[in-house]
Order: sequence, then C-alpha cells, then structure tokens
Amino acid sequence: MSAQDSLPVNFGVVVFPTFQALDVFGPLDALNILSRRHGMNLSIIAKSLEPVSTKYGDPSLNPFNSNFGESIVPTHDFTTAPPLDVLLVPGGFGTRADDIDPLINFVRETYPNLKYILTVCTGSWLAARAGILDGKRATSNKSAWDGVKAVGPNVKWVSHARWVIDGNTWTSSGVSAGTDMMLAWIEEVFGKEDAAECTRVMEYQRHLDPNDDPFADMYNLPREG
Amino acid sequence: MSAQDSLPVNFGVVVFPTFQALDVFGPLDALNILSRRHGMNLSIIAKSLEPVSTKYGDPSLNPFNSNFGESIVPTHDFTTAPPLDVLLVPGGFGTRADDIDPLINFVRETYPNLKYILTVCTGSWLAARAGILDGKRATSNKSAWDGVKAVGPNVKWVSHARWVIDGNTWTSSGVSAGTDMMLAWIEEVFGKEDAAECTRVMEYQRHLDPNDDPFADMYNLPREG
Repeated sequence: MSAQDSLPVNFGVVVFPTFQALDVFGPLDALNILSRRHGMNLSIIAKSLEPVSTKYGDPSLNPFNSNFGESIVPTHDFTTAPPLDVLLVPGGFGTRADDIDPLINFVRETYPNLKYILTVCTGSWLAARAGILDGKRATSNKSAWDGVKAVGPNVKWVSHARWVIDGNTWTSSGVSAGTDMMLAWIEEVFGKEDAAECTRVMEYQRHLDPNDDPFADMYNLPREG
Repeated sequence: MSAQDSLPVNFGVVVFPTFQALDVFGPLDALNILSRRHGMNLSIIAKSLEPVSTKYGDPSLNPFNSNFGESIVPTHDFTTAPPLDVLLVPGGFGTRADDIDPLINFVRETYPNLKYILTVCTGSWLAARAGILDGKRATSNKSAWDGVKAVGPNVKWVSHARWVIDGNTWTSSGVSAGTDMMLAWIEEVFGKEDAAECTRVMEYQRHLDPNDDPFADMYNLPREG
C-alpha cells in the first residue's frame, strides 16, 4: 500500500442558515483545486436538502433590511451523510440559533470516525458544544472571544493563535484564518507540493505562522492557553 | 440629499458552471458584512435559475474523477435581472466554455447603466470579450497571462498589478486578489470606516498596494501596461 492510499478521500462540510460565506469558501476553494490532483468527494450536509443561505435572517442582525446573501445547495442531510474522512465546520451568527442542536449532534456522532475535523471561526463553538474539544487546545474568532468559555468550559482555549492543532482537531481564528489553516493542513497531510500548487492557483499570500495573530492584539486579549 | 443617498444599493454577480468559488465568495463575504451597515440588495444572475456548480465538468480538468464542488442558487436569469448599480464578474475555467456568450452579452448590455463593474481573475476575460475594457487599463490572473491579448487585443493589460482601476472598471488579478480589490473599492466608495469594519470582521490582513504583485514576478512576466 502506498502512502497515497491513506490520504483522505471523503470530505464533508456542515452548513446552517446565516453561516459566514468565507469560512466555507476560502477553505473549499483550496480543496476544489486539490481535487484536480487527487480523487476526492465532497458532501455538503445540512438539516434538509433545502438551499442554505448566508442571509442575516434575524432582523436584529440586519438593521437596514438588506436583501443580501448567497444560498448553497446541500447534497445530504444529517441522516443521509456518507462516512467521512474530514469534516469542515464553519462559523457565523447562525451558530447561535436556537435550532442548531441537530447539527451539533451530527458533529458529535460523526467525529469518532473522522480522520480530521477542521473548524473555522465560531465553528469551534459548535465543536466545543459537541464536547469533542474537551481537554484539547483550540482557538476561535477574536471579536467574540468572551463567549468561548461558556460554550467550552473544559477546552484549553488559546487566545493568541491564527490556528491551533491538537491531535486530529484543527481550529482556526476568524473567517480568513480558515484559509491559512486549510493550506497548512493540506501541506501537513498531502505535502508541500500540493499546498504550493493550491496557493499558486489562488494567488494567495499565506500566513505561515499559526502563532502570529494580530487580531488578538487588536482586541487586547490576555495571553491564554 | 446626503452623500449616503448616492451610495450603490443594487449589486449583482454573474455565475456560470465551473466558476472559481473564492472569486465570488471572497468579495461577497465583505459585501455581506457591509450589508449590515447599509441597505443593499444582491442578485445572483445566471443563464437559468438552476443551481450553478464550481465542479470541473470537463473531464480533462478532473483527471481523478473527483466529485467535488459547491452549487450556488441564482436569484435571476439574464432576462429577469433588475437594474444594477454594481456588477461583479468572477473567473474560473468556465469562462472558456463554448456556451458563455449569453453571459458576455449580459455583461455588455448591463454595463452602460452600472455605476461600477468589478472583475476577479479571468472575469476580466469576459469583460474584455464584452468590449467594455477597450482602451482601458485592466489586469487579470497571472497564471494564464498569455491569454489576455487574444480576448482583449484593444485592452491596455497591466501585467504587474494586484488590481487596476480605470474609471468605473475595477479588475483584479487571480482569485484572492478579488478580496483585496473589493475591500479597496469599499474604502473608496463607502469610506475607510466601513472598509475597516469589514476587514476586522473577516480577520483579514489586507494587501493595500495595488501595484505589489508577487505573482507577476513568480511567472517572470515582462512589465506591461
């Protein structure tokens, strides 16, 4: 068996109303490119097969009554999702919705069979609420840092980090940080050449140091974790 | 009438099969955030209302037969799109499809009534083929630079630029450059505070110099334009 045989093949991403677009599409743009170099499958997983929008449904989040957002089409619901090697969990205001529990349950039940889980922004809140970050080092976005202890009292939250790796859990800071994390993950798992190729096609200038986090400084966060 | 009254309100993005995800969702993530600060509408415009996928439909682009991509749901087709102030034109392999002409016609017919058009990556190829870049300075992605003169023989192509502004046309280099361009456009049109707020929420480290283009150097492109 070659090393190639053990590379992850089956990827999934969970989506929910009012997810943050770039949390999903930054990392997936890199994986889309990677899928031209390796055989890979993507499942887009939600509560139902209805399109899922980024729109700010809660009027308090949309004070000017904008009609602005994008809808993505799920391929599977929580009951039909296939076995996965890798699960991506985005964040966004929708992570705080009252009806997010089925998604959290899906993350909890899926995790034991994953090779890797990666969260972006407040996606780590969902993973924390699923209990899978307990006892682990993890990070989250910095503008809502005050909230992390409530959702994950047993998580070793790292305040100054663009992303954090602990075993097979990868967690990133806010939004754009997910793209840096995913490219680092591709480099770790698939190798330098694949990561360089994705970066080249994306014309992206990577942030290579997971500990360099100017946003933690912007909010004057104490050093924790 | 306050200055606010003249701000763009109606935004559109054209999508087509095998568009590049981040060309669309980098800039739109910034605009999604901006739509919480101003009343804004988004139309997602395609040939029909069927979901449009990033998937590499052409087998030559998908040598490992991956089943990997994301579908976005159009809100309008080319015949039903409302009047627009701003049109975003992404790139991707799908720009070279045989049946892209109706989209190019839409761009050509829509442009005279726009306040601004912004293209990302090979989105500028579509704008060039629509004739709206003739006599103007513009850029495009750098990995396919050889192709620009064929699609736009009368365009003043600028080889070393992350983005280029000429009147109301804004064109960016590849993929990630679209996010830098959009944040610069928000700063120019909506102001520094709005741009800073979008950047903060995105935890994004902007590239502020439109002339700093490491990818033109990577490909050893001659200085043109």
